[in-house]
Amino acid sequence: MTSCPRVDVALVHAPVVNRQGEVIGSAVTNLDLHDIARACRTFGIDTYWVITPFVRQQELSAQIISHWLEGHGKTANPDRAEALSLVRVRARLDEVIEESRAKFGRNPVVVATCAGGQQEMISYPALRQKIEDGVPVLLVFGTGWGLAPEVYTRVASTLPPIHGPGNYNHLSVRSAASIILDRLLGCRENG
Amino acid sequence: MTSCPRVDVALVHAPVVNRQGEVIGSAVTNLDLHDIARACRTFGIDTYWVITPFVRQQELSAQIISHWLEGHGKTANPDRAEALSLVRVRARLDEVIEESRAKFGRNPVVVATCAGGQQEMISYPALRQKIEDGVPVLLVFGTGWGLAPEVYTRVASTLPPIHGPGNYNHLSVRSAASIILDRLLGCRENG
Repeated sequence: MTSCPRVDVALVHAPVVNRQGEVIGSAVTNLDLHDIARACRTFGIDTYWVITPFVRQQELSAQIISHWLEGHGKTANPDRAEALSLVRVRARLDEVIEESRAKFGRNPVVVATCAGGQQEMISYPALRQKIEDGVPVLLVFGTGWGLAPEVYTRVASTLPPIHGPGNYNHLSVRSAASIILDRLLGCRENG
Repeated sequence: MTSCPRVDVALVHAPVVNRQGEVIGSAVTNLDLHDIARACRTFGIDTYWVITPFVRQQELSAQIISHWLEGHGKTANPDRAEALSLVRVRARLDEVIEESRAKFGRNPVVVATCAGGQQEMISYPALRQKIEDGVPVLLVFGTGWGLAPEVYTRVASTLPPIHGPGNYNHLSVRSAASIILDRLLGCRENG
């Protein structure tokens, strides 16, 4: 592992699909900000991008984050400030790809995650190796029932869905993001 | 892997410790029920035990679960019913160990999880092998700032804490449980 992985996470609230497969925008939730920020901080993510085109949702996200970075939350729980300081709120995935490119000095490999199968798969060990080789990566997660089809036209490849012994795969995005970051960046030295 | 792993998960709300290390009881939260039940269902867990000695908290948990098993939630989202049907609410860890023993026909190996270091560690590959050999296992997770010291007197061993490239390890219990279930039971066939 290079001293510092160059990996960003993006959580997309629009465009995503609902249970019926219709393209929608979902609401930002407090726990998606907190749990995924804590996982990002644990696994050395550079920026956690929260993507929503809705101005009121952007304001709400900023208020939540500022409570922990500047308000009472900062003194009550400084560990949380350390995690939430990784969050940046943006309107569209294209902006995020552009800012990630500017920051890392080259185009990041944009990798989607999904609960179903998609074409152009990349395996977890193969992506882990790219990260260890210093390749910048942007991991894209969808809320609701997953990323809208148009998002997949912007990505280089997709990680396989997470399965246990059966075929149930309705993990929360918080769980899926945690597991995927562990598979790609988790320390295995202590077994 | 045997066709069906014999693994239970217990989420302890008392006794746990707070930020100051004092022994307390924490409140049951809706998302701990949902996210961990969905991860349990994904990874083939037999029973997800929610442990709280507080009667009002037991009632609240039962109400939440019943909404999804019998109420409007069941028709709106049957996948969620499938996950929450794994939940059993009990007052104390001792009861859970006894019921788990009765169900599996032998004493389960009781394994704690923690964010700090504890003695009598078992590695993830070693515990994964035990599970594949059909040994019944009860995985114990703490809420708040972790399991109270007295809980460690009841366990056979402890899994190492989860780390990324750095030393920050303030994952939510929802993230930690998801990652640990994936390390022990996740399918690696698709990479």
